[in-house]
Amino acid sequence: MRVKSQAELERLIAAGNRKTPPPTQNIGPRRILGVDTALRTTGFGLVDVDRNQLTAVDCGVIKTSRKAPLSECLRNLAGGIRELVENYAPDLAAVEGAFYCHNVHTAMILGTARGAVIATLAERSIPIYEYAPRKVKQSVCGYGNATKQQVAMLVSQFLNINVESLAADATDALALAICHAQGLAVSGGLAVPAPI
Amino acid sequence: MRVKSQAELERLIAAGNRKTPPPTQNIGPRRILGVDTALRTTGFGLVDVDRNQLTAVDCGVIKTSRKAPLSECLRNLAGGIRELVENYAPDLAAVEGAFYCHNVHTAMILGTARGAVIATLAERSIPIYEYAPRKVKQSVCGYGNATKQQVAMLVSQFLNINVESLAADATDALALAICHAQGLAVSGGLAVPAPI
Repeated sequence: MRVKSQAELERLIAAGNRKTPPPTQNIGPRRILGVDTALRTTGFGLVDVDRNQLTAVDCGVIKTSRKAPLSECLRNLAGGIRELVENYAPDLAAVEGAFYCHNVHTAMILGTARGAVIATLAERSIPIYEYAPRKVKQSVCGYGNATKQQVAMLVSQFLNINVESLAADATDALALAICHAQGLAVSGGLAVPAPI
Repeated sequence: MRVKSQAELERLIAAGNRKTPPPTQNIGPRRILGVDTALRTTGFGLVDVDRNQLTAVDCGVIKTSRKAPLSECLRNLAGGIRELVENYAPDLAAVEGAFYCHNVHTAMILGTARGAVIATLAERSIPIYEYAPRKVKQSVCGYGNATKQQVAMLVSQFLNINVESLAADATDALALAICHAQGLAVSGGLAVPAPI
């Protein structure tokens, strides 16, 4: 179901009856790692999907000090992703496509972080799927301009977890995983893009 | 010595007496890995520096098919760099700073390749130094607008190797290593920037 405005989405969230369809077709058990990549604070969220059931496994952030040099940030980020893969053995990963970047310098910085994450996942043969932020919001909230808070509320309702103490980057990563799970559920995965 | 024009540089190269000073101070033995990063074809060049002597160790390109998806390119690139580190144990790396990029999409793509390279080197605790292309040309040729061919010719004269059969990306990577070696030679390394 599409939502036409922030106000409508807020009413639906308050009533607890946001009607974005959960996975409706049988999907075999799969573990999805969502990664919301950034240089200093990268969110991650692991979701198990099995038939119509979505279950949160873990989520959090990989953080590096603001003062750390670039190489230290990337070492920490690559190490964090490698640890997640070793501990949780995800079947695939969903990462944010950085389609919204307008500044060359920001694009370069974000690109280096993406490179560290994608190379680490690819070296462990994890298929990677990419979603634009707008597509994730559309998928989870039914509204492409939803706020971070609204995304968090919907993630909370989908996964039946309390998101109050979670960082926005972690709930964004869970939203990426949910977005991919929903794609899997549509006509046997027809809505899933090709892996990057 | 600074050179003021392409024509002057060409005359100096033809005469084989380009007077860019080679390392002039005592530098302990060090192995430098130069990396000219790109998504599809990354150049690498290994140079040993010991006192006033520069010796080419190896150079070449890490290449991925034009049709390969992004994750495959980054897996290949990270794997290639890892192999070089394992085979040659460089003490440090010199990479190209991507300061010349004007397009957001290009910056993002180049950024992902840089991220894969830097994360791989950083995970193996190799200090990484960054040089702008203009700085490398200035250092090797004495002229910041030198062409790729002129850089290759000077690399050939510095290292006493035949560069005719080498890819331009490989000679660019050797030039990065030479640039760092020259920085080491100036006033006990005063011209070397902080590692990134």
